[in-house]
Amino acid sequence: MPAADEGVADADADASAGQTGRPATAGRRRVSRRTLLAGGGLAALAGGGTVTAAALRSDGRATASAVIPFHGPHQAGILTPRQQHVRLAAFDLGNRTDRGRAAALLLRWTSAAEHLTRGEAVPAELEPPGSRAAETGALDGSAPARLTVTFGLGPTFFDRTGLTAARPATLAPLPSFPEDQLDPARSDGDLLVQIGADDAFVTAHVLRTLQRLAHGEAKLRWAMTGFTAADGRRNLMGQIDGTNNPEPARALLNGPDVPPWLEGGSYVVIRRIRMLLDHWDTLPPTHREQVLGRRAADGAPLTGGTERTPVDLAAARPDGVPVIAANAHIRLAAPASNHGATMVRRSWSFHDGLRADGTPDAGLLFMAWQSDPRTGFIPVQQRLSRGDALARYLVHETSALFAVPGGTRPGGYVAQALLEG
Amino acid sequence: MPAADEGVADADADASAGQTGRPATAGRRRVSRRTLLAGGGLAALAGGGTVTAAALRSDGRATASAVIPFHGPHQAGILTPRQQHVRLAAFDLGNRTDRGRAAALLLRWTSAAEHLTRGEAVPAELEPPGSRAAETGALDGSAPARLTVTFGLGPTFFDRTGLTAARPATLAPLPSFPEDQLDPARSDGDLLVQIGADDAFVTAHVLRTLQRLAHGEAKLRWAMTGFTAADGRRNLMGQIDGTNNPEPARALLNGPDVPPWLEGGSYVVIRRIRMLLDHWDTLPPTHREQVLGRRAADGAPLTGGTERTPVDLAAARPDGVPVIAANAHIRLAAPASNHGATMVRRSWSFHDGLRADGTPDAGLLFMAWQSDPRTGFIPVQQRLSRGDALARYLVHETSALFAVPGGTRPGGYVAQALLEG
Repeated sequence: MPAADEGVADADADASAGQTGRPATAGRRRVSRRTLLAGGGLAALAGGGTVTAAALRSDGRATASAVIPFHGPHQAGILTPRQQHVRLAAFDLGNRTDRGRAAALLLRWTSAAEHLTRGEAVPAELEPPGSRAAETGALDGSAPARLTVTFGLGPTFFDRTGLTAARPATLAPLPSFPEDQLDPARSDGDLLVQIGADDAFVTAHVLRTLQRLAHGEAKLRWAMTGFTAADGRRNLMGQIDGTNNPEPARALLNGPDVPPWLEGGSYVVIRRIRMLLDHWDTLPPTHREQVLGRRAADGAPLTGGTERTPVDLAAARPDGVPVIAANAHIRLAAPASNHGATMVRRSWSFHDGLRADGTPDAGLLFMAWQSDPRTGFIPVQQRLSRGDALARYLVHETSALFAVPGGTRPGGYVAQALLEG
Repeated sequence: MPAADEGVADADADASAGQTGRPATAGRRRVSRRTLLAGGGLAALAGGGTVTAAALRSDGRATASAVIPFHGPHQAGILTPRQQHVRLAAFDLGNRTDRGRAAALLLRWTSAAEHLTRGEAVPAELEPPGSRAAETGALDGSAPARLTVTFGLGPTFFDRTGLTAARPATLAPLPSFPEDQLDPARSDGDLLVQIGADDAFVTAHVLRTLQRLAHGEAKLRWAMTGFTAADGRRNLMGQIDGTNNPEPARALLNGPDVPPWLEGGSYVVIRRIRMLLDHWDTLPPTHREQVLGRRAADGAPLTGGTERTPVDLAAARPDGVPVIAANAHIRLAAPASNHGATMVRRSWSFHDGLRADGTPDAGLLFMAWQSDPRTGFIPVQQRLSRGDALARYLVHETSALFAVPGGTRPGGYVAQALLEG
């Protein structure tokens, strides 16, 4: 339950004690965490303070195996092996937002995520000023189940907070692709929250909690629910998922050109891709394999070997016909066909029941992590949208791109270096 | 993958070999399983045959601990401890249906469920006649994860199949309750399917499979997705769920007045109850406890003890005010207030994201199992709908009642004794 005695009094204590991440920014005037949470907002940030937090305690309920550390050079939920459940949600900031109010929201969310990922209740001090809402204890008795909470910033976040000049050129809105059928209300957004866990009740209540804590500052724009198979690796079309995924760390940002708030971060593209399962299911199995370019049984390329065998795009039958068809998905999506572009796919299945036309509202919440969408998702999708044999069984319904800031250390909050820069 | 060689040839073999359930009905002419599946329908049933199936084999993939036996005196999914995930779906029969076509569908579904709950692929022979669809193998590599598939019949099933005279009086449409805000399109239905498992991918693909197998015979009317906490026992309001549930077997039907097809079966009421969480979260915690009549921390009645301590409805404070308020949920729902009515609650949380007004589309998929809704759910809900303090935080959005036939033995199918009676 909320612990009002959990250290508000020493909110100005030096948070560098016990931290393991990057060194504290030196020589900055400190702003009280309490002032920021209480609505001090931009005024509290004037001069650029480092917001600090109370030392965090563990209440011992969470078992070690179920806890994914929240702090580190990267946000959890990128390199973390996929959990069984995800809630993706985009929030839009209110009309009266500014840099300080956005900072207060991200501090609130970051602090809440620290507690929740350890299996602790959200302290009452994190409830928004003016809100009468309070935690109901729905997670009492639940382990965090490898909970990760990952935050991202959409292109519009920067305009809304007066930070347009700080928006990386890389974070431009995605272009439209020829076959897209996008629903704008379920695309884009100022802020992304990715909530992953091995317990669907945990992801549901954490989403609810973050929505409650955003009261007065940001509204939920859209939310999506995804899952993975507990044992299997297939998607709802029956395809083995994640074959030939590159080393996840290749999606991370590092180097002199990366702004400090993005160091260790990434870019993520989200596409809700509905599968036309009624149509797909009627294809003869060999036709399905040719569409993909892989064997259904084991995921091996049709040119032979095992799932991990590189595809031989040049292989031809005796009659000269290529083994991997010219429009096979595996050919068009291959790095060799896209100047070496790589994306780290970390996708989820969804099945939201029934559409008005009676067909299944099911498919893939495609998530691609990368260091630059201009050389990653964008050229690959441009190629796929012009002739991929798989495309006729898919409908891209939503689309979004977010910059995912680097990780935090105790006392810090996500995007702090941007908002206090 | 589908096994075309899986025993179609001996479809007329005596299925009583190896069965462990009730004795075979003697002296009836046998109808070929193949004839029924191929669309023989009513003609095949003329004279009332016992449909038999090939001896079933296990392909060894499923681990014993993950398998809930499909056969038995009761359908699995009633007494089975709740899994982590459920898909509830109602189907409506087509306009040209009749008793034989409904029988063929239930045989198809029963046979598919037998295979799926053992972790086996659905044999190709079960695909509907005229359908070009085939299994994609999406569950290859997945354990059944305690999969149960439970079938029910709605009041309208009997009129659609010419069996109006066989409809039990108990299976009358539920009355309307004063505060209901029902969506007819997501209420009722000719047939119920309850798919439970500890793996959300399994429940999703099983729903997809049953929908595919119903092609040409029944259309999905509505589908709902629910979950339970892996460790905890609370619902999304933070209340401990399932307190004082009666012994589950009390929901089962037995005795001389029960028609043979319902022996060992039950009646289930399904209500999608949306929670007004934005409102609930703003209530002071003590107020929440008074609304319910129980302590939030441990679920004990406000009259003391532990969660399992019986509530003392007569207890009063020194000033004469009852400890359990006159409109507390626990008082109005208590068996003592309802002539001893008992229901076995086996409910699930749901969170389908965002409503158009920005509030959470979340709550409880309430399921109450009972031997007679006229002395179970109906009087209790009539009482709750006239003054339950909890009711102002809930919206009953959908409602359905189904008769759930008894269990099957190998070679039989759900509701066989009704459809061949």
